[in-house]
Amino acid sequence: MTAAPPNVIAPVSRRYSEVHAPSSPVAHFDASTPLRLACQQDLAPFSIAYETYGTLNRDKSNAILICHALTADQYVASKHPVTGKPGWWESVVGPGKPIDTNRFFIICSNILGGCMGSTGPASINPKTGEPYGLGFPVITIGDMVEAQARLIDHLGIDQLFAVIGGSMGGMQVLEWAARYKDRVFAAVPIATAAWHSSQNIAFHEVGRQAVMADPEWKGGNYYAAGTVPKNGLAVARMAAHITYLSEEALHRKFGRALQDRSEKTFSFNADFQVESYLRHQGSTFVDRFDANSYLYITRAMDYFDMRDSAGGVLANAFRGTRTRFCVVSFTSDWLYPTKESREIVQALNAVAANVSFVEIESDKGHDAFLLEEPTFFATIRGFLNAAAVKRGLGDAKETSQ
Amino acid sequence: MTAAPPNVIAPVSRRYSEVHAPSSPVAHFDASTPLRLACQQDLAPFSIAYETYGTLNRDKSNAILICHALTADQYVASKHPVTGKPGWWESVVGPGKPIDTNRFFIICSNILGGCMGSTGPASINPKTGEPYGLGFPVITIGDMVEAQARLIDHLGIDQLFAVIGGSMGGMQVLEWAARYKDRVFAAVPIATAAWHSSQNIAFHEVGRQAVMADPEWKGGNYYAAGTVPKNGLAVARMAAHITYLSEEALHRKFGRALQDRSEKTFSFNADFQVESYLRHQGSTFVDRFDANSYLYITRAMDYFDMRDSAGGVLANAFRGTRTRFCVVSFTSDWLYPTKESREIVQALNAVAANVSFVEIESDKGHDAFLLEEPTFFATIRGFLNAAAVKRGLGDAKETSQ
Repeated sequence: MTAAPPNVIAPVSRRYSEVHAPSSPVAHFDASTPLRLACQQDLAPFSIAYETYGTLNRDKSNAILICHALTADQYVASKHPVTGKPGWWESVVGPGKPIDTNRFFIICSNILGGCMGSTGPASINPKTGEPYGLGFPVITIGDMVEAQARLIDHLGIDQLFAVIGGSMGGMQVLEWAARYKDRVFAAVPIATAAWHSSQNIAFHEVGRQAVMADPEWKGGNYYAAGTVPKNGLAVARMAAHITYLSEEALHRKFGRALQDRSEKTFSFNADFQVESYLRHQGSTFVDRFDANSYLYITRAMDYFDMRDSAGGVLANAFRGTRTRFCVVSFTSDWLYPTKESREIVQALNAVAANVSFVEIESDKGHDAFLLEEPTFFATIRGFLNAAAVKRGLGDAKETSQ
Repeated sequence: MTAAPPNVIAPVSRRYSEVHAPSSPVAHFDASTPLRLACQQDLAPFSIAYETYGTLNRDKSNAILICHALTADQYVASKHPVTGKPGWWESVVGPGKPIDTNRFFIICSNILGGCMGSTGPASINPKTGEPYGLGFPVITIGDMVEAQARLIDHLGIDQLFAVIGGSMGGMQVLEWAARYKDRVFAAVPIATAAWHSSQNIAFHEVGRQAVMADPEWKGGNYYAAGTVPKNGLAVARMAAHITYLSEEALHRKFGRALQDRSEKTFSFNADFQVESYLRHQGSTFVDRFDANSYLYITRAMDYFDMRDSAGGVLANAFRGTRTRFCVVSFTSDWLYPTKESREIVQALNAVAANVSFVEIESDKGHDAFLLEEPTFFATIRGFLNAAAVKRGLGDAKETSQ
């Protein structure tokens, strides 16, 4: 099961060092156990890079899988090896935090198609000895989950105590619950949807066109040329970033305030703080993310529609489930609005699932799940504790932390 | 006042023929009457291309100025000379239509900074004999209005019966009412705001960065090179186009329907109809619009904040007004949401202006003002008729059409 890493072509820039030799542990799956993808191709060999936090208990019943969103990674609660920044969910995951690493064993893996050590378009195609580029198969959210399931097997865990994730992470949570009904005790899909809306497909298509319009993209073969489609990827990130915030949040953060000047310059400089902020978001993203990964992952999200394999009726996907669900949305999230969470809840109710639904009042938009939101934190903490009691893991209120 | 057109460099492509020799009438303003811009530069000479419909009555009291939005032009109710398509507001303007050309004399001019015959960045800079490019001064909505005022002078009209426009056209309406209190009998700002929001600045900045990232933009000097930053401008248009629609409209029009296929292709083709539609919007826009004009006009919108010259208080801008206002918004417009129209109404109320406010129920988003919306049509027709009676232009209900 655990084979040597694939050959790494030299020289690789620092940007690609995490692709080929990640800082985190990696599970390698060799040619004897190919992953059959939704597109009907077999992917082999493949690798899944992952981080863990906390300790797995003796009967392996306290494992929580955290599924990350579009541009995140396995460094959920530890320093990012490229940016040096704290983990992307350190407010939620850690000792005494809502997802408490003193109680639970946390696993977070870089998704299939990613660029932080799991196999993706920047990885070496063993058939050619070159990076896959557009030779990488188009993958789905379901494929990501199948790859994660191999990792969970590899770790020797039969049932996950919980699967938790926001945005695209929430899509994976839903797929886990639908595909592995006996392996998910509790599921927390946050700020997500059971299918990607027309508007969200549209925004993703803009981002992809921006990347592909950049001559440095070179049809996806920029690795060998040593180039990066940085302008196109930055534009894609800028457009996407607007959708992660709310109009209220932008207004509160920036309004029409000018950046380091008292008067407009009557030029195309970044006069407004919001312009400067967006440009910064674009350029820092390029430094840490692979453009082809961005294409493949957005495509997987666009393809996501759980009704497709459920005869057109979402409820069918969950029929027979015994998982406990906690569905969470945020009032100002216009990317995955509350009504899309309600559709999940209605489908779960239709099959008499155990489901609670919390709409959190927030003006922070879609990104609220990544930010300081006390009501959200209390919701996660409360739900996990109640589920832990049911699972025989004890009550946090009665144990010291 | 009316001078010869500036020299036209040869060869100019069909794309630029309307810049230098528009199909519509043009008013030329020579070096003796420069336009003092907000940036404190003088612009001279300059030209304003315009169309008219209907007949000006003897006392010149039935003129309506229609102000166009970001990418529209003077062809409000007649065939576009480049695309051959009908005028952009033929549903609203024409014989017997809500803005009735049997009763009113309609004027619509291409804005300053545009690319359909009014002076803009694609026009020839008389100092160099070459297109301005980024040598064109950064202009404001107020500058556009000042240029229009010159045209109205040129046409010998003292007072406009009405000034009407949607989106950026509505911004011009507000500036007209604030700057020329005696020259505007009635004003209809539609789906607009008195200042551009942080979110809208953000979307515009994405579009500008997309254009500027295109190597074919060449720092704005693409005219001489015979190139067009078509990829960048198409991406800008695609991103903007999403904001003109509502999530509901996208869902109704496209949902997740596939384009000319029954199965996903597991590729980056335009599998979804919404992708195909957006790509089409992007590519057709490039054929008719100048990329630099797009930069300058979006910048003018971003700079728009009527509080700036009113001591920070919007109401001050309208103090002393006797204009009759009809402010219109649409429920599903998230680009210029109803609350921004309410801010205009509140400012007008604060100075005891004559104002009516109509929020039209529509799920068509910002573009609703350009589409078939019977309640909107009835609102415009009713308001204009009542104002016409007050102006002594008679009652449409009592005259045959």
